[in-house]
Amino acid sequence: MAHGYISDKDDYLKRLRRIEGQIRGLQRMVDDEAYCIDILTQVPAATKALQTVALGLLDDHLAHCVADAARDGGPDADAKLKEASDAIARLVRA
Amino acid sequence: MAHGYISDKDDYLKRLRRIEGQIRGLQRMVDDEAYCIDILTQVPAATKALQTVALGLLDDHLAHCVADAARDGGPDADAKLKEASDAIARLVRA
Amino acid sequence: MAHGYISDKDDYLKRLRRIEGQIRGLQRMVDDEAYCIDILTQVPAATKALQTVALGLLDDHLAHCVADAARDGGPDADAKLKEASDAIARLVRA
Amino acid sequence: MAHGYISDKDDYLKRLRRIEGQIRGLQRMVDDEAYCIDILTQVPAATKALQTVALGLLDDHLAHCVADAARDGGPDADAKLKEASDAIARLVRA
Repeated sequence: MAHGYISDKDDYLKRLRRIEGQIRGLQRMVDDEAYCIDILTQVPAATKALQTVALGLLDDHLAHCVADAARDGGPDADAKLKEASDAIARLVRA
Repeated sequence: MAHGYISDKDDYLKRLRRIEGQIRGLQRMVDDEAYCIDILTQVPAATKALQTVALGLLDDHLAHCVADAARDGGPDADAKLKEASDAIARLVRA
Repeated sequence: MAHGYISDKDDYLKRLRRIEGQIRGLQRMVDDEAYCIDILTQVPAATKALQTVALGLLDDHLAHCVADAARDGGPDADAKLKEASDAIARLVRA
Repeated sequence: MAHGYISDKDDYLKRLRRIEGQIRGLQRMVDDEAYCIDILTQVPAATKALQTVALGLLDDHLAHCVADAARDGGPDADAKLKEASDAIARLVRA
């Protein structure tokens, strides 16, 4: 089965590469002994970019896998919902 | 002036390189078209690791730059406290 | 239409009353001029309890309103999914 | 010893009473069987208001108790810093 995010695969990869660049930027700042507050200031940008990737994957998952399972009914629909709920809870509590 | 985190510089770099590895792992999963929920499950681990780095830098900053400025007194002490408070607020709200 | 959470209405009310009690406890501590850190320590308990209520409502909403709309298909299904996604994003970013 | 937030005590009490009102509003919505998404939408407002109270208390604490202890030096300064760091970590991770 093709997952919901596949059509945007390149977009997700581009965003994850940008986040990788942000993490490498943090390493460079630590290595250059930058001012602590200046390093700290960059961290929320990276965590928010990661959250946005996660929310995008979750949207695609709800709109495809979960909606398809709901349409087909049966025990798989409940299992997919439970799985999505657990993933949402982990994101909210992260 | 040497910043508080410098003595742990290698430890910070090691942790940031591990986070970079987690981000690259996410890219690989997207590229391999892994199941959405399996990708999602890895995101909180990376955001928590980033938070832990940020909290460590903040601790070192409070224990050195802010405490030193408080000891010396003067307008710089207030400026350092305000700067630290703003950084804490950004982390809490991220 | 009956909403998904109605069967657990009493449970939600009980949990929200407990959170109200936690907020009143914070007021009492401020009024009694308790130690700042002791007050601060109580805040995450209240925000986590609120998150748990929100996640419960969201689960019920996905399992009923969203799943029903997906089953029926049509433009309403997309609208319900978009609405749920927006609510999840607000919770994750709060 | 007077705590840092005491001069703003009335302001903190007013804000906590407003949050109590928000929680009671949520109870009313559940009791009236309001639409799940409309209830959910109110939750981030309450959690953000709680975070703002916590950040205010923390600022006052850093500017008074922690700064005073740093000025006086000795083992108490380290203990105060450790206590503040732990409180910040709990807020960031909540």
